[in-house]
Amino acid sequence: MLPVVVVHGGAGHCPKEMSESAKKGVCAAARAGYEVLRGGGSSMDAVVEAVTQLENNSLFNAGCGSVLNIKGDVEMDALVMDGQTLASGAVAAVRNIANPVQLSRLVMDKTSHVCLTAGGAQQFAESMGVPLVQQESLITDYARMRWRQNLAPEANPVECQMGKMGTVGAVAVDVHGNVASATSTGGILNKMEGRVGDTPCVGCGGYADNRVGAVSTTGYGEAIMKVTLARLILFHMEQGNTQSAHKYAGEEDHEFLLSALRSVGRGSQRFSPGLHEVQSGRSRWGGDSGPSRSLGRSFLQHPDVLGCSSGRCSALRSVRGGTPDREHHHPTMTSKY
Amino acid sequence: MLPVVVVHGGAGHCPKEMSESAKKGVCAAARAGYEVLRGGGSSMDAVVEAVTQLENNSLFNAGCGSVLNIKGDVEMDALVMDGQTLASGAVAAVRNIANPVQLSRLVMDKTSHVCLTAGGAQQFAESMGVPLVQQESLITDYARMRWRQNLAPEANPVECQMGKMGTVGAVAVDVHGNVASATSTGGILNKMEGRVGDTPCVGCGGYADNRVGAVSTTGYGEAIMKVTLARLILFHMEQGNTQSAHKYAGEEDHEFLLSALRSVGRGSQRFSPGLHEVQSGRSRWGGDSGPSRSLGRSFLQHPDVLGCSSGRCSALRSVRGGTPDREHHHPTMTSKY
Repeated sequence: MLPVVVVHGGAGHCPKEMSESAKKGVCAAARAGYEVLRGGGSSMDAVVEAVTQLENNSLFNAGCGSVLNIKGDVEMDALVMDGQTLASGAVAAVRNIANPVQLSRLVMDKTSHVCLTAGGAQQFAESMGVPLVQQESLITDYARMRWRQNLAPEANPVECQMGKMGTVGAVAVDVHGNVASATSTGGILNKMEGRVGDTPCVGCGGYADNRVGAVSTTGYGEAIMKVTLARLILFHMEQGNTQSAHKYAGEEDHEFLLSALRSVGRGSQRFSPGLHEVQSGRSRWGGDSGPSRSLGRSFLQHPDVLGCSSGRCSALRSVRGGTPDREHHHPTMTSKY
Repeated sequence: MLPVVVVHGGAGHCPKEMSESAKKGVCAAARAGYEVLRGGGSSMDAVVEAVTQLENNSLFNAGCGSVLNIKGDVEMDALVMDGQTLASGAVAAVRNIANPVQLSRLVMDKTSHVCLTAGGAQQFAESMGVPLVQQESLITDYARMRWRQNLAPEANPVECQMGKMGTVGAVAVDVHGNVASATSTGGILNKMEGRVGDTPCVGCGGYADNRVGAVSTTGYGEAIMKVTLARLILFHMEQGNTQSAHKYAGEEDHEFLLSALRSVGRGSQRFSPGLHEVQSGRSRWGGDSGPSRSLGRSFLQHPDVLGCSSGRCSALRSVRGGTPDREHHHPTMTSKY
């Protein structure tokens, strides 16, 4: 099977002056992930490598470049999931770690647990020989400037999330047909201390299942969690496999999906443009230019879509058998964030 | 609509000498939840009340009576979810709190976030006037004895989870037809510090959606997370609503479901007997005594089952219209844990 990697640089508005560099960053991450796959590496190796690149790039809200919480500190979340075993690893509200995505993988590989948080995650990192880094090394001037700006009494809680890219993530399928997903984030600007978003929550920030595909999400985490977005996408991709699924997804169910997805964007359209962008992704890869109001629906209407990438939400469907066309297997299906 | 509450006292083996008291505790919690509903309270009020009762009962692994982590400390997780708004609140690895389920509700009601962890959750509790309690007040002699026992080099990692009941939870539907779910736990005995299980993870430890129903899960959290069990159950309950869903749930999909559920029980049957017990629950409420190998399937085969309660996993389907029979609306559908 031809390997594929899909990378996103996160939801959120990207300031014009950063646009070109950010695009380069996403492309470089996708290329790095693809090199791993081309060298025979697993999809898990690939997504961890791609996300590591973005964590190390100070333009993105993950690792170095993370947004700051209300106290001016960096607390990060990350998740990896292996579609072959359904195993996952996560860290929540972890500090002083350069690459939370790598620590997540260690949680998956080296413990009997799925998720470690706060001090416990940090102790585990030390026990694994992962160096703790000074918090200062993760904080950019830009992040600190925005944090200060948003402490001001007149700061607008919606506006304050803008001007910075969101959570980063990657999904991949390797030559053996195994899929994997990885997601990493600094969370929401000026969040409360200890806030855990959707990212480390299995089924919300990501999901991977060889039988269906892999998803990594980004957007307003509190809204994503309402609908367990990653799992929801995969359920509907799964349904897209059969004619009866199409029938099942009748009016009433569409209404439910729309309702659920509306509740994702409820009053926070500017927080979660990703949900709309996925439709662009669908249009781009699926070729349908008709109106669409629901993410689930877009997949249902396009059971053969392979990759859907918009920089807001990336979803990859694993294909078993058949000869997919070249466009769908472009080595670097990068986001337009 | 007639209100209903379903309460479970958790997966895990209950020692014989505690059996009667534990049954009484679950019944008392269900009665307390039902009193709230009968007084016109919301389903959310009811599930929080029921779970609070179990947290205060030292026989259960939640609040007072929680198991200890590897260092001998109590770290608790809890989740509430409101089926009308899809809003949820959670705390992860929180210490010194008598009633984590109540703190979860405060996170939902008083912050813009869904989940707070560790020190951040504790600070939030203080800011809300929730008293911090001495850790000693949450630790029973029994919990400490088991912790010591399991530190021994010859301790069996599977055996060590036995002899204690698991996570507790409740689901309810109120007179307005709104459903809610609540789950609370001390986690797994001798877990690593900072370990977060399925409980506070939306879609894993619980889920509630007025259009489908509400679920609270218990069992081996790391396995539950593999399949986002609560969300999976609701997806299949949802499919049970239509004939086409039955068709959709054909052989291939059953195989997937079975595979997923097998992976839940993989090598840890004694950790997660709940998955089997739910089938008993199905038999009990649904009246089908035939063989069943999958939880999702049991719902698909019984689209009209209202409540399924086994003390291991409780699931409640909200019913719109029609006159349900008396048995299904028994005020205290308590678990047999």
